[in-house]
Amino acid sequence: MKEKLTLVKVGGKIVENPETLAAFVDIFAALPGAKVLVHGGGRTATDIAARLGIETHMVNGRRVTDANMLDVVTMVYGGLVNKNIVASLSAHGCCALGLTGADMDVIRSRRRPAGQVDYGFVGDPVRVDGERLAGLIRSGVIPIMAPLTHNGEGDLLNTNADTIAGETAKGLAALFDVTLIYCFEHAGVLSDPNREDSVIGHIDPKIFDELVQNGTVSGGMIPKLENCLSAVRAGVSRVIITRADLLGTDSGTTITL
Amino acid sequence: MKEKLTLVKVGGKIVENPETLAAFVDIFAALPGAKVLVHGGGRTATDIAARLGIETHMVNGRRVTDANMLDVVTMVYGGLVNKNIVASLSAHGCCALGLTGADMDVIRSRRRPAGQVDYGFVGDPVRVDGERLAGLIRSGVIPIMAPLTHNGEGDLLNTNADTIAGETAKGLAALFDVTLIYCFEHAGVLSDPNREDSVIGHIDPKIFDELVQNGTVSGGMIPKLENCLSAVRAGVSRVIITRADLLGTDSGTTITL
Repeated sequence: MKEKLTLVKVGGKIVENPETLAAFVDIFAALPGAKVLVHGGGRTATDIAARLGIETHMVNGRRVTDANMLDVVTMVYGGLVNKNIVASLSAHGCCALGLTGADMDVIRSRRRPAGQVDYGFVGDPVRVDGERLAGLIRSGVIPIMAPLTHNGEGDLLNTNADTIAGETAKGLAALFDVTLIYCFEHAGVLSDPNREDSVIGHIDPKIFDELVQNGTVSGGMIPKLENCLSAVRAGVSRVIITRADLLGTDSGTTITL
Repeated sequence: MKEKLTLVKVGGKIVENPETLAAFVDIFAALPGAKVLVHGGGRTATDIAARLGIETHMVNGRRVTDANMLDVVTMVYGGLVNKNIVASLSAHGCCALGLTGADMDVIRSRRRPAGQVDYGFVGDPVRVDGERLAGLIRSGVIPIMAPLTHNGEGDLLNTNADTIAGETAKGLAALFDVTLIYCFEHAGVLSDPNREDSVIGHIDPKIFDELVQNGTVSGGMIPKLENCLSAVRAGVSRVIITRADLLGTDSGTTITL
């Protein structure tokens, strides 16, 4: 039987603020067993960029990353946000280790070709070194992954944190019984968007099709759930969508095959 | 017989500039055997701070680090400078891993008490976890250490890179045959400050005393050499002072017992 591993993705909104970070770290540190954290940090990147006189351009919710913006996200994601999480977890006795994809070459990406939009220094993962991550994890390390990868030719690349979480979970699925948890602004996938207590407890491919057909799930939630289903099809045991403060409880929507 | 390990400290001047960084990485990547890199980054920190409207105060060559400046050095040392070195070394096939003292709790510091000067969030190392670093190094990892540590209570602390190099070399000396190399603006300790070819090849405690007495060594070079002698007294096999571009050659001043 494979060892259980929990991989949590948390957005910048939680980890950029000292109070919410402290509350989150308390909960994350208490999660039992092997674990990995993937974090965002976009708000701080936008803020620091503005203070440096660098304008932020977003297309379809993704950051256009020229050379100056790459420096900003490298500073903010790889330095400020990552190292503050590491120091906080270390104070909780966790053996936390901050990583980008360039560190130990754990995630290699391909720079996204310029199509209708040139996103600049943005990368899509092509390989996650699950064995190397597993070696760290089995020695008691908790990898804390910033949303940065590299192309193996010396360039860092800005990479979406949800994508890093999904690809890392897939890369570890052959070696661990992986639960991938996406922290989200709601308690789970809601059947009634106005009622936080209307969480749909379980979604599988058949239920997903029904929810799309009857209109319960729509808009941006469709690709999000498709990504979750893609992860479970690639061997991730289960994906949970929940609120960061509910981590470690039974709340949330569980997606399985 | 202990395995050989080379620990190189390189200043920001070399690693902050893309051309000198590329040349340095070529040389460092080619050094044989186990190795560790400790880097600075002060010029970029001062530059980014100025662009963010944060004034830099230096006292005795050390940066006064208030909360805003701590964020700047965390971004610059832990993010921008460190991750660009890691990505460059990774492109050379090195299994480089960026670390602060908070990562895996490898260097614990004590915040320097406010005396005549309050340096703010500045830490002096109290413990280097040589065993943990050795575990990484023996698995083929090359630690790339930023000049940041932590106090174990969640606070990052700005820490002098020369000090990190010296303390890390001492912390590894029981486990490896350690050569500590300080990259310096000259080819070594010079007997004639105007002649780059006047390098003193070897210094031991007796020679050091003579050089101080006859005035060959003076000013800031005295505490620098005292630090080197303190490292060899603590078990570091040898300390070499040389120029970054001469790394891996026989040039430089070697300090031994």
